[in-house]
Amino acid sequence: MSGAGEFDLITRIRARAAAMAEARGDVELGIGDDAAVLRLPAEALLVVATDTLNAGVHFPVETVPADIGWKALAVNLSDLAAMGARPAWATLSLSLPQGDAAWVDAFLDGFLALADQHRVALVGGDTTRGPLSVCVTVHGFVEAERVLRRDAARVGDDVWVSGTLGDAAGALSQWRGGEGVETALRARLDRPTPRVALGRALGGLAHAAIDVSDGLLADLGHVCVASDVGAELEVDALPASEALREAFDAEARRALQATGGDDYELCFTALPAQRDAIVAAAREAGVDVHRIGRIVERRGVVALSGGQPWTSSRAGYTHFR
Amino acid sequence: MSGAGEFDLITRIRARAAAMAEARGDVELGIGDDAAVLRLPAEALLVVATDTLNAGVHFPVETVPADIGWKALAVNLSDLAAMGARPAWATLSLSLPQGDAAWVDAFLDGFLALADQHRVALVGGDTTRGPLSVCVTVHGFVEAERVLRRDAARVGDDVWVSGTLGDAAGALSQWRGGEGVETALRARLDRPTPRVALGRALGGLAHAAIDVSDGLLADLGHVCVASDVGAELEVDALPASEALREAFDAEARRALQATGGDDYELCFTALPAQRDAIVAAAREAGVDVHRIGRIVERRGVVALSGGQPWTSSRAGYTHFR
Repeated sequence: MSGAGEFDLITRIRARAAAMAEARGDVELGIGDDAAVLRLPAEALLVVATDTLNAGVHFPVETVPADIGWKALAVNLSDLAAMGARPAWATLSLSLPQGDAAWVDAFLDGFLALADQHRVALVGGDTTRGPLSVCVTVHGFVEAERVLRRDAARVGDDVWVSGTLGDAAGALSQWRGGEGVETALRARLDRPTPRVALGRALGGLAHAAIDVSDGLLADLGHVCVASDVGAELEVDALPASEALREAFDAEARRALQATGGDDYELCFTALPAQRDAIVAAAREAGVDVHRIGRIVERRGVVALSGGQPWTSSRAGYTHFR
Repeated sequence: MSGAGEFDLITRIRARAAAMAEARGDVELGIGDDAAVLRLPAEALLVVATDTLNAGVHFPVETVPADIGWKALAVNLSDLAAMGARPAWATLSLSLPQGDAAWVDAFLDGFLALADQHRVALVGGDTTRGPLSVCVTVHGFVEAERVLRRDAARVGDDVWVSGTLGDAAGALSQWRGGEGVETALRARLDRPTPRVALGRALGGLAHAAIDVSDGLLADLGHVCVASDVGAELEVDALPASEALREAFDAEARRALQATGGDDYELCFTALPAQRDAIVAAAREAGVDVHRIGRIVERRGVVALSGGQPWTSSRAGYTHFR
């Protein structure tokens, strides 16, 4: 532990954040004043998301700092993706047991690697003493006609999901079981990919969208409640990675896919007439999408397997349970 | 402990935040989607500040939840005030050991009381399990010509401060000493007043500004470093409350005023030609201001008492010391 002071840490973070702030050209004042001052684009809505990761709750305590940095930004960019927004700026509030400059440098390696991919400038924040906790707030923009809301699902819509499901929960399951964790699964847990390009491509095309953070059944449930509709889900149609297929039998795998959290894929609904357009948009965004169900009038989310109701003993992850 | 679930807590917070979001008229989507969607004013810069309060670090663990709620928003609005910005929206990330609905209600009593005073809408956030910690991000607006920056102090400027100094540090000192804490001092520690109206009134009039959170000497030092200037401070001119005068002798009081943190007054610099205008602006904003020194060429902050250098054994508060 090097015991760097608060101002040293801020100076360090500021130096590493300067290049992107400069490159974006819309950061009037970044890190180093009482607040950031930012130039706004004309004709767009501001989209703001905030999410905190606590050690031992949102990531295993032994997670390396670079992965914590990546994930803290990724889960927030995933929220922007689920709104159809393009990311712009982030703030970072870091609570640390000690002023450990090497830890902060490694954390920034992960955080800024992802920030650079999406041209996100780190424009402010604070560092405080406390149990390890990372609070990130992200800002982005979306045109009014491209907002993807939770309450916009319509009866008759297809339900879609991007990528594959269950990998992150599979890694957690292996880790909790004391087994070795498959590298490919662990990567999905530690370094989720926010589906920003897909979210942008779906704007104006999809109806409702949400990112899969609590688990597919739970998150699709949020969409249904907000939209005052129900959904039928084909459990056999849920996409799985090769790594997940190899590591778990069919029943365990389906439970992880349907109820495991932390995937950060996009679940969205759209008119059947848009199927070709959706597939084309996803291809353009560089990610696979799968049709996994439909929106129905009857409230609730029903999971089906071979035409029969399917249940799992697991529920979507919620805090305080 | 009532063990409310995460979604119950969010529903609760959402219900109480809805009125102001509605009243403002610029909240397209508030709490309840993946992110907030907000309508931007034309011709303004966005100002963003974020600050975290951790139990036992930023407030005594026995602080009542309503005061924690007030303070968590106040320290952030204070940052907007120091930029000359008018507040608009806030997000709240709450880490709690248990899902205690009564605690959250009491917390919101304080948070929303202050939010209402400044027409701030709570538009998003999250609740997570973890050691008690509150991360707030606030958003406001400022016209380009009214930004109060730290790096804008000029040689020859007067140095001013609003209100009185040392009360919050006096309360902490009494509390640490195991004495009873004076009610008036405790109120300044638990419910600081962000000087939002003063910050707005100083835009275009003052040069540099900062809010006094680490302690006057430390914060004025930040202004001097950013502006590449120095300052001379008249310690005898620092404003003190009656309560502080009664509770501490002159030497202890001056140390609290010069180096104690958590006052959330504004320290700012302006041309001597603006003295009458500054006093008039402060009267309009309903707060006293005092001239306490001047900006000089020689780097560093020199505190003077009776024309002689004055030193204190205390330094401004920094984390990780």
